[in-house]
Amino acid sequence: MRVISADSGAALLNDRFDATLIVAAAAVLVDSPYRLAKKSITEPIFSRIAGSHELIVHELELCQRLLNETEADVVHLDMSFGGLPMEELSPIQLSNISGKARGYLLKILSKLRKMAADIKRAHNVEVLAVGKDSMPVRIAELTAGAYAVLYSAEKSIAEKMTVRLGLPSKCYARKVENGIVVHSLAPAEHDIAGFAVDNQQVLRKVTFSELVNPCARGFRALEFAPGSTLDESRAE
Amino acid sequence: MRVISADSGAALLNDRFDATLIVAAAAVLVDSPYRLAKKSITEPIFSRIAGSHELIVHELELCQRLLNETEADVVHLDMSFGGLPMEELSPIQLSNISGKARGYLLKILSKLRKMAADIKRAHNVEVLAVGKDSMPVRIAELTAGAYAVLYSAEKSIAEKMTVRLGLPSKCYARKVENGIVVHSLAPAEHDIAGFAVDNQQVLRKVTFSELVNPCARGFRALEFAPGSTLDESRAE
Amino acid sequence: MRVISADSGAALLNDRFDATLIVAAAAVLVDSPYRLAKKSITEPIFSRIAGSHELIVHELELCQRLLNETEADVVHLDMSFGGLPMEELSPIQLSNISGKARGYLLKILSKLRKMAADIKRAHNVEVLAVGKDSMPVRIAELTAGAYAVLYSAEKSIAEKMTVRLGLPSKCYARKVENGIVVHSLAPAEHDIAGFAVDNQQVLRKVTFSELVNPCARGFRALEFAPGSTLDESRAE
Repeated sequence: MRVISADSGAALLNDRFDATLIVAAAAVLVDSPYRLAKKSITEPIFSRIAGSHELIVHELELCQRLLNETEADVVHLDMSFGGLPMEELSPIQLSNISGKARGYLLKILSKLRKMAADIKRAHNVEVLAVGKDSMPVRIAELTAGAYAVLYSAEKSIAEKMTVRLGLPSKCYARKVENGIVVHSLAPAEHDIAGFAVDNQQVLRKVTFSELVNPCARGFRALEFAPGSTLDESRAE
Repeated sequence: MRVISADSGAALLNDRFDATLIVAAAAVLVDSPYRLAKKSITEPIFSRIAGSHELIVHELELCQRLLNETEADVVHLDMSFGGLPMEELSPIQLSNISGKARGYLLKILSKLRKMAADIKRAHNVEVLAVGKDSMPVRIAELTAGAYAVLYSAEKSIAEKMTVRLGLPSKCYARKVENGIVVHSLAPAEHDIAGFAVDNQQVLRKVTFSELVNPCARGFRALEFAPGSTLDESRAE
Repeated sequence: MRVISADSGAALLNDRFDATLIVAAAAVLVDSPYRLAKKSITEPIFSRIAGSHELIVHELELCQRLLNETEADVVHLDMSFGGLPMEELSPIQLSNISGKARGYLLKILSKLRKMAADIKRAHNVEVLAVGKDSMPVRIAELTAGAYAVLYSAEKSIAEKMTVRLGLPSKCYARKVENGIVVHSLAPAEHDIAGFAVDNQQVLRKVTFSELVNPCARGFRALEFAPGSTLDESRAE
């Protein structure tokens, strides 16, 4: 079963560890044994947290772009409605969501349903609201996290400033020969990871260290400073 | 404290990774330090998911059979009611369970209470509804998972077809000299496992590979095909 | 960001693994990378579980004492109200807490608010109700757990009896040269730990073994008996 999925992830953190901007979005193609992305499209987004519900529209656009490049059997969207097809999702299903979040979702629901119908027509592929139960969504999150490391490093170099990046939930970043791997630390996900290729070798132009987010258990962070370091072998 | 407990676990999965049949049931005796079963009774059940609430009656029957073979201080049943004695569980305690599940439970409640009373009378042992908090229930689940591996391998050989088995939550299977070990991957359960003895050496007659369940985070699966393999040393 | 935090943790367990007395309280100072306490104040408390809501007042007192010794930017209290400043917490915020717990909290709320106001005035430091999201609270819990090991060993020696200690959630104890380390086993907390210095070398005067708490998944326990052992190298 070939699954296409997308997620936005990793956030810049201010001095008090509040998330300010979501850094990256990724769409991925995942196939058996469902451990890593076989193919991906990623983008730096640096999007404000406030409007983050609209990110899901962008995520579905990325899935659409990936579907134009490669075949898949199903699309998993990062919305948790028990795997219901997106086309069948009505305002009624949103009724047990709390006030504010529901307002945001209602705004984008008709757009998402239209896009899901387009995808069904063009590719004969269903868009399912699997969300937190989906491993491909998790792999998209980790892939977005890996590219967020590159984008944050670039930002640190370009703006000659220290940048603090909050990684996705329960993962850590490890520098490898040609890029960065973001490994899951969630239970039973020891072999799940996201990978970003560092073509411009930006990771050689920054120093980065790992820390724990004191205000969000299970979340780790990286701090980037311009300038190379002697020992770049581990993101610690 | 010697605890007897039971659970049903592991499920055959179809092409879309929906669970179709629950494969095995196990009753276990667990004693300090509560890491592995000291004794077990297991059965292939291949039971439909729909009627899975009745499986708990069968689980308590397995506990009863194990109590006839060995002594214990308490029975832990896989029902989560804060450790309440089964005999004291009334329809009122079920009132905050959602509609459908409550209907199923009400049907089996009087049967379970009667069985608990029988066990109390015959063995002077209390049946507690500890459920998800119970480590012996977890060990029963992993033991059922280990035997499910054997039963699935047998099915693959007998029916000359590929079989896909979804393991219990947060665990993986590892082939050892004389059987199969299903190790927990849940936090703080690194030394908890279930074990199945492969007397018929059925694992030598199948090839099996490990994959991640894409539709259920934290769940891993195995695929069995008839025919031996050269490298059988790990269930990967 | 220098964070001061406190927690009470680890409990004596009876033969049925019910918690009877909470053993230790700890206040800690934690700074980047937020993995271990930089400084701590700990106390044996052996407090009854029933009145455990009052422990939080004592925890804030320990934070106050630590603030008198060292500077900090913020205090994290083990109450989970989304990081709200303690001074702003009113009975209304407690309205979605269930009956009994709310009663306890209302009793201590005015006291906690007064203490938070005192801390703000004296040190210009805010007390935040971060609770379960706070890594410093977790480090305080593990530090309390490490000292609870020492206090339980002392109790076992003084009272010439076996003592069973339930460790905090998802951690294990490891004996080291000059004390005891309690390592987290929670996801993404592989480098988080609490440490207790064993000045009196009490750990040389007891034998202790590790077991799993059968009635509480994710919790491990230690059993102490007076008398030394030959192989004291690991808490297993």
